[in-house]
Amino acid sequence: MDNVIDGKKISEEIRSELKQSIKYEMLKPSIAVIQVGDNEASNTYVKMKEKACDEVGIYFRHFKFEEGESELSIINKIKELNNDEYVNGVIIQLPLPDGYNEKRLVNTIINSKDVDGLTDINTGRLVSGRKTLVPCTAAAVIELLKRSNVEISGKHVVLVGRGKLTCRPLIQLFLNEDATVTVCHSKTKDLGYVTRHADILVTAVGINNIITSDMVKDGAVVIDVGINYETGKISGDVDFDNVSKKASLITKTPGGVGPMTVTMLLKNTVYCYLNRKK
Amino acid sequence: MDNVIDGKKISEEIRSELKQSIKYEMLKPSIAVIQVGDNEASNTYVKMKEKACDEVGIYFRHFKFEEGESELSIINKIKELNNDEYVNGVIIQLPLPDGYNEKRLVNTIINSKDVDGLTDINTGRLVSGRKTLVPCTAAAVIELLKRSNVEISGKHVVLVGRGKLTCRPLIQLFLNEDATVTVCHSKTKDLGYVTRHADILVTAVGINNIITSDMVKDGAVVIDVGINYETGKISGDVDFDNVSKKASLITKTPGGVGPMTVTMLLKNTVYCYLNRKK
Repeated sequence: MDNVIDGKKISEEIRSELKQSIKYEMLKPSIAVIQVGDNEASNTYVKMKEKACDEVGIYFRHFKFEEGESELSIINKIKELNNDEYVNGVIIQLPLPDGYNEKRLVNTIINSKDVDGLTDINTGRLVSGRKTLVPCTAAAVIELLKRSNVEISGKHVVLVGRGKLTCRPLIQLFLNEDATVTVCHSKTKDLGYVTRHADILVTAVGINNIITSDMVKDGAVVIDVGINYETGKISGDVDFDNVSKKASLITKTPGGVGPMTVTMLLKNTVYCYLNRKK
Repeated sequence: MDNVIDGKKISEEIRSELKQSIKYEMLKPSIAVIQVGDNEASNTYVKMKEKACDEVGIYFRHFKFEEGESELSIINKIKELNNDEYVNGVIIQLPLPDGYNEKRLVNTIINSKDVDGLTDINTGRLVSGRKTLVPCTAAAVIELLKRSNVEISGKHVVLVGRGKLTCRPLIQLFLNEDATVTVCHSKTKDLGYVTRHADILVTAVGINNIITSDMVKDGAVVIDVGINYETGKISGDVDFDNVSKKASLITKTPGGVGPMTVTMLLKNTVYCYLNRKK
């Protein structure tokens, strides 16, 4: 359909740009991924990241610890990577197994290599409006809108969800772009009443079809970040078949925000490489 | 009037509670205020803080540097105070004269003594929903609502303004309290349309009478954080005489949020004292 924002296509464009600049400017970006335990979904995500890195020319290193490995030895590995001038990005594959202090481990990553944008300091910098590394899914939403020529300034953005990976950073990013921003969540009364005000509606809840067409204004731009597996296949938060008839632009799940998230990780890594000596 | 939230009275209640607990629990909280230059408004604010500290029994130390003092010597003083076990809170009186790196100086303060709640790490912690030191004016707004028995959960809060001292932290605080939150600002189209949806309206713009009674829903709670001197006397953002006829509860300027801000600084300092050994 004409009004579908094709995340896969936009993602490929960006990866191709990254690949070109890595090749012709002879950049040598590298990323280190720390994984603890053998969570199946994590294995898949790590492989997906490795494949994407290989594709554009980012050197990928994978450090896999067994579940039960001491937190201290993981911290020591992070510190070693912080100090390694040949490593530009460091991420910890989440979720960690029970018993590990996620916040402590994430905050051990030096801010200049925090390509997931999750340390407290980078979060604080984002809130105070300074240039910093931004969580990949949130960055993906803004990038999709910009590459689709959606004007954000002065628009009313409604975020459904308040999670730290997507909606909390998006509040800041949309305010920085001069949007009016509303944040809804499970405690919001009459969700549809609020979402009908959205010029740009972003949903990151993880409940299949929670956004139906009566909840969307004619001509709205709809970005679906939700991922659900309930129906046996991957779906988003939005009743796509019906909402797409009202929206001026809309993402589809799969093929919307998903492919963009890893791409933003690649972009952040190249950014860190280019800024490594500043 | 019956529906006025008396910030002065609530502030006195809290100060009296603090004074009692300092006295009977034999607490020895202390705060250090760093001032650079001789800005008249800053002199007044520092004196106001000193008086409030004296009143409740917080030991007050004032370090005043001449404008032109090197940034390094101010940083060294902050580090000395960070390491001084008899100092529980450290603040830098803002604004600093031109030429000083405010972010760098503020972020030199150790997080556990950051009683203004302004370091990047404390900002990041607030965004990720953890207990942390919160900027005093934002904390004052929440405290006024709670002490006035206003239910926040499920309510639609509209913030007018997006500054880092008040509205940015209030987004997080109100989300943590389960409110639906909308943030408006100078680029918002039809501000009145948005503010009329507010169950709780908080304004922190600094424009006299920007909020008129047609912009407020019947029965709304209105908190005015704005401060203006244009008319020769102190006023807020809200056309109090008319809005107070529609609001169920409303603050008045002066005598609303203002007196509470210094009180929250006292409260943060006692909190830091009590947590000093954790």
